Amino acid sequence: MWSSIAEIGRDPITGGYRRFAWTEADLRMREWFSGECASRGLDLIEDRMSNQWAWWGDPDGSAAGGVVTGSHLDSVPDGGAFDGPLGVVSAFAALDLLRERGRAPGRPLGIVNFGDEEGARFGLACVGSRLSAGELSREQAHALRDGEGLTLPRAMERAGHDPDAIGPDPERLARIGAFVELHIEQGRALESAVGVASAIWPHGRWRFDFHGEANHAGTTRLEDRRDPMLAYAGTVLAARAEARDRGALATFGKVAVEPNGVNAIPSLVRGWLDSRAADEDTLAAVVAGIERAAVARGREEGVEVRVSRESRTPVVEFAHGLRDRIAGLLGGAPLLPTGAGHDAGVLSASVPTAMLYVRNPTGVSHSPAEFAEEDDCVAGVSALADVLEGLACQ
Amino acid sequence: MWSSIAEIGRDPITGGYRRFAWTEADLRMREWFSGECASRGLDLIEDRMSNQWAWWGDPDGSAAGGVVTGSHLDSVPDGGAFDGPLGVVSAFAALDLLRERGRAPGRPLGIVNFGDEEGARFGLACVGSRLSAGELSREQAHALRDGEGLTLPRAMERAGHDPDAIGPDPERLARIGAFVELHIEQGRALESAVGVASAIWPHGRWRFDFHGEANHAGTTRLEDRRDPMLAYAGTVLAARAEARDRGALATFGKVAVEPNGVNAIPSLVRGWLDSRAADEDTLAAVVAGIERAAVARGREEGVEVRVSRESRTPVVEFAHGLRDRIAGLLGGAPLLPTGAGHDAGVLSASVPTAMLYVRNPTGVSHSPAEFAEEDDCVAGVSALADVLEGLACQ
Repeated sequence: MWSSIAEIGRDPITGGYRRFAWTEADLRMREWFSGECASRGLDLIEDRMSNQWAWWGDPDGSAAGGVVTGSHLDSVPDGGAFDGPLGVVSAFAALDLLRERGRAPGRPLGIVNFGDEEGARFGLACVGSRLSAGELSREQAHALRDGEGLTLPRAMERAGHDPDAIGPDPERLARIGAFVELHIEQGRALESAVGVASAIWPHGRWRFDFHGEANHAGTTRLEDRRDPMLAYAGTVLAARAEARDRGALATFGKVAVEPNGVNAIPSLVRGWLDSRAADEDTLAAVVAGIERAAVARGREEGVEVRVSRESRTPVVEFAHGLRDRIAGLLGGAPLLPTGAGHDAGVLSASVPTAMLYVRNPTGVSHSPAEFAEEDDCVAGVSALADVLEGLACQ
Repeated sequence: MWSSIAEIGRDPITGGYRRFAWTEADLRMREWFSGECASRGLDLIEDRMSNQWAWWGDPDGSAAGGVVTGSHLDSVPDGGAFDGPLGVVSAFAALDLLRERGRAPGRPLGIVNFGDEEGARFGLACVGSRLSAGELSREQAHALRDGEGLTLPRAMERAGHDPDAIGPDPERLARIGAFVELHIEQGRALESAVGVASAIWPHGRWRFDFHGEANHAGTTRLEDRRDPMLAYAGTVLAARAEARDRGALATFGKVAVEPNGVNAIPSLVRGWLDSRAADEDTLAAVVAGIERAAVARGREEGVEVRVSRESRTPVVEFAHGLRDRIAGLLGGAPLLPTGAGHDAGVLSASVPTAMLYVRNPTGVSHSPAEFAEEDDCVAGVSALADVLEGLACQ
């Protein structure tokens, strides 16, 4: 399966993937999903959000609900091969393995491809699952725009979908008795081939606007400047110190500068903070500390600082019963938390949800260099098959 | 004259000007120049670089060469009203004043509008004057591209010019006996209404590339990161300290980040340094100090730093004879240096050149807030008329 998607949406220069929601590359990934589904005789359903569902068995055929696995097929800009597709490819492979083992599920078994998980195009992650779960309203989704100013509804229309039909889908989620997402680990926390998720750290995005005064870089005396780049730089270093001191994560990975001219002191530097921590209190303390540092640095430079929260996701504790049952099925696989958000995290509020991780030897993710050993991927498929068998074939 | 150009190329939101070389706004400014020229009965000549020259008298009619004044009509992004246009408007106004005074020049008198002074579109300043002076070759100019990838020759073609005709123009420069550019001061160094330039500080642009490793901001442990944003931030602060310690200027006003995603540690942060100092040795020491700091910060973060010089302009000492004569004509106007590059600086290698500055009470330039008092502008016109009269009407 890997070879048939290896070139889809791949940038020839960076080697990374650029599979953004409802673009040509995304549509080709969706066609691939349909093809895999058809070749296995599964029933394909595309829901109103354009999430794809492949069913083995009648999804309404079990009072306990179906067992669903899957992940997403879109990518961050210059993303790696595994983040997302590993969960979908492994889902099909695990289903093949169950059939090889001669097992037929007693409960319906589903494979899902959630749309727009990475949020690379419209700036908000997990749009497909958030809409389904009612965590994102149609009005909020309709207000999203991509980098070229195209709104999400127009992008959906261009891809042949009806943007007015999006919205909460409780009937479909009610069919799910258990959702298990397999995903590549995105740090180096996992020492064995496969692990089970315990929790997703609370996390959020904050926009820091540093307002200074545009001026000529060649003629304005240092003492006459109100240079927001200095306040921004001080804040970047303060964020690292805050995160280190509190055992959390804080990253400034995106910047926009106005007017962004070599010989102009900027009028505005806008930096986006991504921060995550093991618990809510720590996260709040880290962000408050960075905000204090930004305001203090701004004051030194005559720069006004405004901070706005763009998103905030509370801690996700995966269902303990399902988590422990899965760890048991896998002979005591290690439990580990993650700082990354996932569709599984969104669904966990509506459905019993668990995650399996496959080891990442370098810890690199969201990069063309993202890598997993073939043996570990095979172990992931086997573990996923064991879990599906344990949950659906009893 | 001001009211007829006030709205050309003005951004309705910022109030700043966006008059970039060979764009619609630039063409309208050029039409305005032609109109002012025609209404005064001056002969308009557009040279191969598309610089505009308005002559009162035969430019070849004097063995000592003509006296030329003028400046430029293009702007930086969101530039102010005065940087450039003040020199051209004042030139026409000074010519009107000479005529009111009943003085006719014994030497031909020219007014020039140099093209693409700010370099806002193609990244290199003073393209029109550099080409004329042979400081920039046709091949180098043809390799320039704007932010949308359009080359300079294609942009010239679209504006109706022949890009193959550009290149050194020594015959035209030989017609100039003296060039005097009037310009708004761009700092707060001038306490009287009008001053005379002594020198232009040596200055240059250096590109700092910080190569780290793209990774997931939510899952990569701090100790596993190679985050180029940290090395960049440390370098920005070090640049300010170096400049302060050595009485120079150093500015990071332009940044480009890859992939520039909120939840991605960057693979690359590229920052452009603009630095200037009173003498060559100080400038070299400042830049070397910043480079050392960048490499040291990079080493701490596992980030590779590459520094490349994009441009470098040596110190310009304006012709002492002309400078002292002008200061004398103005009754001992103060002499002052500047950190800003100008067409006058480029021409000074080929032609006796001087500059007049008009006071800038706030010191703000390259910004919509750039401002000069009306009384000071009138004093500038009067001083320029005195200088032209003294040089051309004896």
